[in-house]
Amino acid sequence: MPRLSSRTQAIVGSPIRRIATLLDEARRKGDIISFGGGAPSLPPPQEVVDYLADFLRKAPQKTVAYGATRGMIELRELIAEDLKKYWNVSYDPKEEIMIVNGGTEGIYLALGAILEPGDEVVLIDPTYVGYAEPVRLLGGRVRYVPVKVEEDYQPNIEDVKKVVSPLTKAFVLLSPDNPTGRIVTEEFVRDLVKLAREYDFWIIFDAVYKHISYGRPTPWVDAFPGARERTITINSFSKEASIPGFRLGYVTGPAEVIESMEKIKQYVSLAPDTPGQIAMIKFYESGIKERYLNEIVIPTYRKRRDLMYKLIKEYLPEARTTLPEGAFYFFVDMRRYLEAMGRDDEEFSNRLLYRKSVVVIPGKYFGEMGLGHVRMTFVSEPEERIEEGMKRISAYISSYL
Amino acid sequence: MPRLSSRTQAIVGSPIRRIATLLDEARRKGDIISFGGGAPSLPPPQEVVDYLADFLRKAPQKTVAYGATRGMIELRELIAEDLKKYWNVSYDPKEEIMIVNGGTEGIYLALGAILEPGDEVVLIDPTYVGYAEPVRLLGGRVRYVPVKVEEDYQPNIEDVKKVVSPLTKAFVLLSPDNPTGRIVTEEFVRDLVKLAREYDFWIIFDAVYKHISYGRPTPWVDAFPGARERTITINSFSKEASIPGFRLGYVTGPAEVIESMEKIKQYVSLAPDTPGQIAMIKFYESGIKERYLNEIVIPTYRKRRDLMYKLIKEYLPEARTTLPEGAFYFFVDMRRYLEAMGRDDEEFSNRLLYRKSVVVIPGKYFGEMGLGHVRMTFVSEPEERIEEGMKRISAYISSYL
Repeated sequence: MPRLSSRTQAIVGSPIRRIATLLDEARRKGDIISFGGGAPSLPPPQEVVDYLADFLRKAPQKTVAYGATRGMIELRELIAEDLKKYWNVSYDPKEEIMIVNGGTEGIYLALGAILEPGDEVVLIDPTYVGYAEPVRLLGGRVRYVPVKVEEDYQPNIEDVKKVVSPLTKAFVLLSPDNPTGRIVTEEFVRDLVKLAREYDFWIIFDAVYKHISYGRPTPWVDAFPGARERTITINSFSKEASIPGFRLGYVTGPAEVIESMEKIKQYVSLAPDTPGQIAMIKFYESGIKERYLNEIVIPTYRKRRDLMYKLIKEYLPEARTTLPEGAFYFFVDMRRYLEAMGRDDEEFSNRLLYRKSVVVIPGKYFGEMGLGHVRMTFVSEPEERIEEGMKRISAYISSYL
Repeated sequence: MPRLSSRTQAIVGSPIRRIATLLDEARRKGDIISFGGGAPSLPPPQEVVDYLADFLRKAPQKTVAYGATRGMIELRELIAEDLKKYWNVSYDPKEEIMIVNGGTEGIYLALGAILEPGDEVVLIDPTYVGYAEPVRLLGGRVRYVPVKVEEDYQPNIEDVKKVVSPLTKAFVLLSPDNPTGRIVTEEFVRDLVKLAREYDFWIIFDAVYKHISYGRPTPWVDAFPGARERTITINSFSKEASIPGFRLGYVTGPAEVIESMEKIKQYVSLAPDTPGQIAMIKFYESGIKERYLNEIVIPTYRKRRDLMYKLIKEYLPEARTTLPEGAFYFFVDMRRYLEAMGRDDEEFSNRLLYRKSVVVIPGKYFGEMGLGHVRMTFVSEPEERIEEGMKRISAYISSYL
């Protein structure tokens, strides 16, 4: 076999994807309770399902035809209206909005459009596993800003200043956050934009959980003065419309960066999924989205979140965590238990799956600051099973102590 | 705005995608006849459409759920059976087959998995526009092997030897070919594999048109001794199942290269489209694929091909071309006309669209050897419109001469 590229030796496979595979296998064997992968457990809106099924039967060829690389203009126009409505920011649907094959492609294309070899990208630690590796794949370097449970995982601008330099090409901000559920403060965004202007770096604002919030909405980076010309915002339909299998999202940014991303996209995926786009056009019709989010998604997830919070306090009184303001996850500092058990977070998670058939994600996967933590999602299981899972975790720990 | 990456300045946007956009606009205005983009003009098999629509209604959440990065194992098992049946080559569905988001992603991931900066990739000239740019995006260099209409666009192994060197990392072979319709000879593949072993380079075999052949099937590179450990084969459902909008294909290769491609794919697109995979599981069921190809696709396209060939001889007697053995295209040497008209192929194509509302693709887009040629697809229009289009081209040329 001829040599492979060294580029893939520098990156690691996503541990969460590995767990998804393990989980698939484990599921066949027995009663697994998953607090693992953050996949929506609700079906998409019924109106959208019916519309797409009808469309497919009536116009099969049109449903599965090639589309433009930037996506359907009708959908981009609806997105512009929607962003205006929710965040009061105007984007030109032709020049400043582009449909992508999921938030993952959005991040990859955004980094591809801006990074030179050696450029630095600042990430918050802990953070989503899907930033550092594409930065490395594209020749960039990663710098980290630590956050702590004691400060509700809120980043401090002074810590950002410590790692920012003329080498900084971008800062990645995920809000609401995975794994911590944090929604960043207005003040932090204001200071970050100021710093970005001073050092002339990009802000990649990952807003894939934007509609999954239980109180105040996330600040919208582009709404801050001076942010527009240096912000690329990543959006996904996976969480807000519960259609992760369509791999569909969208990106907003300055026309020049959208143009660069489009060039790369032509050779990475050619175009986004057409049936998914047809479905999402319906999603924006006459209040479907609002009803779905306000009457189904948010109430369902909020109940589960509140229950899990209560149960963490009850069953894991020595653990420390913070009530997530958004997204799907609790990031739980388990160090007091783990030290007593003499296990690290990965050993704990592996044995918990093996012994009690409960899936949690080791905190170390999200960064050095995640050591001794686990991530538990409340999105995948209904309430009675959340309770059952928490009991099992507690019983497992008790068997040790 | 902070600086953009220089990587996108080195590549050009796909001219055919640009034409697709122009065409969309032109279509609204009038009666455009398209011999342009090679998008299938047939609906997918009815059984597949019905199955997917039912599946979506019955199990919406499952239809649009996240899947594994390599794709559904059931589908990969069916692909393995299918490849065994058609080409008598065995692939391990777990380790040697991976579902990708269309042939485009397959090519990008394959190049990403093997290329180091400065590595050379050998392409045939003319060729599909989607190879040179991703090679450059990934830091590689392109070398060309010219082919000519006089030799039915068949590559000569002696010409390949002239550009192959220790810097050669891969050779890209598309058969059946776009834009020429050429199916490569057994002898050429045998010699190419020998050369690949001698110089230790990869063969990227792009087989996206594998089922679109009007006589003999394309040789299958992996079937040649010594080829398996150095061949990555790109397949697409877009052409054979007429579902380009689902962006779905698959790749076969040695386990190690599939693993590297999977790593990259986690950060490029996470996973392939789930609904499309469900549809393709049905496609392989009980003769659906065979009936669709043998009774609908091939007879329809063959009739159009034969008609267009006859009409080229009749209306463009001074043009030179070759009857395509596969794929969707005629690559037509128009130099005798263009010289008399004092136009190059791009001017000709632009003015033909403007004056006569007929789309053809300038040959220069496919490489230097394509200068003075045009590509005309017979896949998009029914027979009476192929005739009408050819009449318009002839009338346009006559108005000059």
